[in-house]
Amino acid sequence: MSLTKQPLHITSRDNPLLMRLRKLSQDAGAYRKLGSVWLEGDHLARACLQRGHALSLALLTEEGWGQPELRALAEQAPKVVIVPRALFKSISGLESPAELGFEVPHLASAAVLPAVDSVILDRLQDAGNVGSILRSASALGVRQVLALKGTAALWSPKVLRAGMGAHFALNLVEGLSLADLDGLQAAMVATSSYAERELQQLSLPQPCAWVLGHEGQGISDELMARCALTVRIPQPGGEESLNVASAAAICLYESARQRLVATPQ
Amino acid sequence: MSLTKQPLHITSRDNPLLMRLRKLSQDAGAYRKLGSVWLEGDHLARACLQRGHALSLALLTEEGWGQPELRALAEQAPKVVIVPRALFKSISGLESPAELGFEVPHLASAAVLPAVDSVILDRLQDAGNVGSILRSASALGVRQVLALKGTAALWSPKVLRAGMGAHFALNLVEGLSLADLDGLQAAMVATSSYAERELQQLSLPQPCAWVLGHEGQGISDELMARCALTVRIPQPGGEESLNVASAAAICLYESARQRLVATPQ
Repeated sequence: MSLTKQPLHITSRDNPLLMRLRKLSQDAGAYRKLGSVWLEGDHLARACLQRGHALSLALLTEEGWGQPELRALAEQAPKVVIVPRALFKSISGLESPAELGFEVPHLASAAVLPAVDSVILDRLQDAGNVGSILRSASALGVRQVLALKGTAALWSPKVLRAGMGAHFALNLVEGLSLADLDGLQAAMVATSSYAERELQQLSLPQPCAWVLGHEGQGISDELMARCALTVRIPQPGGEESLNVASAAAICLYESARQRLVATPQ
Repeated sequence: MSLTKQPLHITSRDNPLLMRLRKLSQDAGAYRKLGSVWLEGDHLARACLQRGHALSLALLTEEGWGQPELRALAEQAPKVVIVPRALFKSISGLESPAELGFEVPHLASAAVLPAVDSVILDRLQDAGNVGSILRSASALGVRQVLALKGTAALWSPKVLRAGMGAHFALNLVEGLSLADLDGLQAAMVATSSYAERELQQLSLPQPCAWVLGHEGQGISDELMARCALTVRIPQPGGEESLNVASAAAICLYESARQRLVATPQ
């Protein structure tokens, strides 16, 4: 197969294109201004392609360009840039930088889908938690994740890494106010250690919108007041609390389990 | 209440006591040589006391010593040291250092408890994942966590922080070889995306030892061969995988759920 396009070689740190990628990689919210996101490594790029989304630019180390598999992946992008490894390292946000990364258009969604299983994030702060929740949501059949204002930026490189490709399978809307949830048409359910009934004791609504709160402060009073139901995750081990991403995994699993039990395969 | 002991004021960075605490705080495996661990902030210290364990030394900023609640907590330790905030910061492993920290004896356990619900960690690398799994284990009624050689150090400051006090409620044994699991007397269960049956479709063994594998490589073949059962976590959303701490939370919840359903409260 002959190459129809020649890769561009860049060796200057101050090249404007590299400065843009550096900003995307190192500034969690830069995608909002620049309209594109940074995907490092091959896994995220493959997940992006699998879901039918386009890559706009591939950046490789010289060593990466020498690897046929990575080269083939890079050539899925209309523009390929090759840089020395030290320069790639100056862009990467990782301790052990990959051999390639991609710029991809930011898939901004403004539309809250009605009547589908959802997750609502109320000011979650930790990028690892947010990414892990997106990953669980995607695996367990949730269609969309809605982030209220004050939640960590969903398309930041850290959340993208922890999400492991889930971003490309979900309808993600961020920067929402409580009023934006009015058209949701899914019962909002929150966990609370004060709730009377335990998770396994009741039939969960379908569709269901699980509400997850700030790591320290929990769910805001205003949002809690809009919830149709509160449930307690059983804690036979005592009064310890759960990490919010672990709690999310349990709640989303229980919703999926109840659906599966109701409609055996 | 009159103080029976006077706090010690230290202002030199190179004080041997501070150098020891700095090592405990910043070197994940230092507790193995030094025999004690570093707990930063008040939450971990309170969890430690609640489970009947002793604090051996309290280190406070001058501002922390001025807060009656923190002062009362610090005075639970037989030795109290006060340092300027800049010096505390040089010891803390956190971006936003707390006002106090504690040195506590390392609660090393060498004994694998037989016939109790357990979690087995096979070379997990990420401290956040390990801490989150300890937290879920403790909340969901698991008695012990067994770490095979090559797993992240369980008593490192990062795992302690993510564990949120769970360390003090569990029997934790680390550095184990496969032969050390011989006396376990609990059926080992692993998750696998190739398993025939889904988690919610079968009666889980009681007691159960959930086996969790390395974030990239999964469970070793030798360990997998010792498992009594493999199960698949249902993933109606497609082929995405779950974060290992999320998968652990789901498996431990399902074990707890089945026990609760079998013996209603």
